[in-house]
Amino acid sequence: MLLQTVVSSFSDAIEQALRDILATDSSLDSEYLHMLHYHMGWTNSDQLLDSAGKRTRPLLTLLCTAAAGGDQRLAIPLAAGVELIHNFSLIHDDIQDNSQLRRSRPTVWARFGRSQAINAGDALFTYAHLALQQDVGLTSETRLEALRILDETCISLTKGQHLDMAFETQELVSTEEYMSMISGKTAALIAAATEFGALAADAQDNVRLHYRAYGHYLGLAFQIRDDILGIWGDSAETGKSSATDIERGKKTLPILYGLRQSSELRELYRKDDLNTDTVRNILDEKGARKYCEDKEQLHAQDALQHLAAADPLGDAGASLENMTLQLLGRGD
Amino acid sequence: MLLQTVVSSFSDAIEQALRDILATDSSLDSEYLHMLHYHMGWTNSDQLLDSAGKRTRPLLTLLCTAAAGGDQRLAIPLAAGVELIHNFSLIHDDIQDNSQLRRSRPTVWARFGRSQAINAGDALFTYAHLALQQDVGLTSETRLEALRILDETCISLTKGQHLDMAFETQELVSTEEYMSMISGKTAALIAAATEFGALAADAQDNVRLHYRAYGHYLGLAFQIRDDILGIWGDSAETGKSSATDIERGKKTLPILYGLRQSSELRELYRKDDLNTDTVRNILDEKGARKYCEDKEQLHAQDALQHLAAADPLGDAGASLENMTLQLLGRGD
Repeated sequence: MLLQTVVSSFSDAIEQALRDILATDSSLDSEYLHMLHYHMGWTNSDQLLDSAGKRTRPLLTLLCTAAAGGDQRLAIPLAAGVELIHNFSLIHDDIQDNSQLRRSRPTVWARFGRSQAINAGDALFTYAHLALQQDVGLTSETRLEALRILDETCISLTKGQHLDMAFETQELVSTEEYMSMISGKTAALIAAATEFGALAADAQDNVRLHYRAYGHYLGLAFQIRDDILGIWGDSAETGKSSATDIERGKKTLPILYGLRQSSELRELYRKDDLNTDTVRNILDEKGARKYCEDKEQLHAQDALQHLAAADPLGDAGASLENMTLQLLGRGD
Repeated sequence: MLLQTVVSSFSDAIEQALRDILATDSSLDSEYLHMLHYHMGWTNSDQLLDSAGKRTRPLLTLLCTAAAGGDQRLAIPLAAGVELIHNFSLIHDDIQDNSQLRRSRPTVWARFGRSQAINAGDALFTYAHLALQQDVGLTSETRLEALRILDETCISLTKGQHLDMAFETQELVSTEEYMSMISGKTAALIAAATEFGALAADAQDNVRLHYRAYGHYLGLAFQIRDDILGIWGDSAETGKSSATDIERGKKTLPILYGLRQSSELRELYRKDDLNTDTVRNILDEKGARKYCEDKEQLHAQDALQHLAAADPLGDAGASLENMTLQLLGRGD
């Protein structure tokens, strides 16, 4: 109840900001913008499709600002920037992964072709930066600092993405390499989202570090949960076709665990003989799901500890804790 | 002589700055950085390959700073940023155009695969932004302004790129649409390069506008020249295979002119029957080359007029004029 009220008022503000940034218009650009709007889940009407995604990251930003005692309106451009970077990376990721579906609709490349989709991703990357330029009351120094954080995050993202793709053809991947990959690919942007919240609230350095660490560990837990869903989730829940992680030979955490535990699985991967049911049976037998759930749990606890250390205030603070539990499938 | 002395000292500074930006190291990143270094034309030694490209844009930035009475050292991060944006766009462009060769070597995607190449482009895109963050003496406001110019430029770039790809399947393309496309795809970044020069020199607004307009018209002339080379140039000069513009059905200026003038050519394009020699013969017959050279000339004159109006100083000013003529194939 509490969660829903705060979250829905913040969500509206985020959606409006995203629309304002991407609503420039000229007759020559209409197809260009149409691709971006399609990906963002907007139709020509004001209706927001279910396919718009959950806007989790920008919501974290605004909640962190409010929880750190700031005015969340100052954080709106930063929140929008984070969401646009997330969506840029999804468009390119779908091309790289050859994924035809996202949020139960054709991906941008499946709909408009790969070349235009590369360009649409580049456009969202740029709009993310322009979002952070908006002057809503933050100083030039703070906006410059936010841009620095955003770009260091994008370096981490591309390094993580590089490793993720390299792993597909790499026989042995250590847990350390895997953690390094998801730190870049997933956790970096969530850490930026929560740090942005504290930055916009002009929080003390140590508080800002706790908010950042909260996002980092939440991101790790979130990715491991995503890995679990990639093997055991159903497609109605994920909006993607199920079992693609197995078929595409992705080295997610359950698989890496299984490969260490089972010579039979190593043999299947060596022969590239990847039947979803067979692989899933081996993983079940070896307890891969429990192993991953324990890891997820550990990082979730780290996240909640850093959140507690940041001493988040009021409704927003309560919402953050609630949302963290929900994201990890343990909310009410 | 004059040109060579100034240019070679500025070129060294640019190359060093680019290397500093892209030289971060850790064992996990080595392949990631290798791709970027490969594209930039660097080997493991300090040797700069011919395939490094001419670094024309950053050179324009430094020359404009010096010509506007500033200290070119303040402009080095901005110059590096422009060159990195140029290279990001080349990597993605080569994927989109399916081009296997650039600067007489395999393109990044041809060498490392399309997925990794998309990511390598994204990485250079990000490093360009980080370059502009460097504090070498410009104020926070100026750096923020430079980032704003860079991102507005990237919006223009992606809009131009969008149109360029859309034209391939569009039967009729007007000269107006063509000019809009090259304004974004080519002229915007060169305009940013020359404006950055004036910005770093803290030039008056009207002077800065002249430098920007100089770059804009130079960019238009430059693209039209590139279009001419794309039909009549030889591959040794361009580093690309010749006649690809015709075979790929690209709507460059000579083709657009020919399509207006020749029903025979319209018929060939309708049937997608694109033999290089046949198309070139029709273009020759209709005087397409002369038409394009006249257009190039007009924009080159506009460029030189704005340069003169900016009243560029000393050796750098003389070098700019010289370089402009050279870029357009009319230098000594």
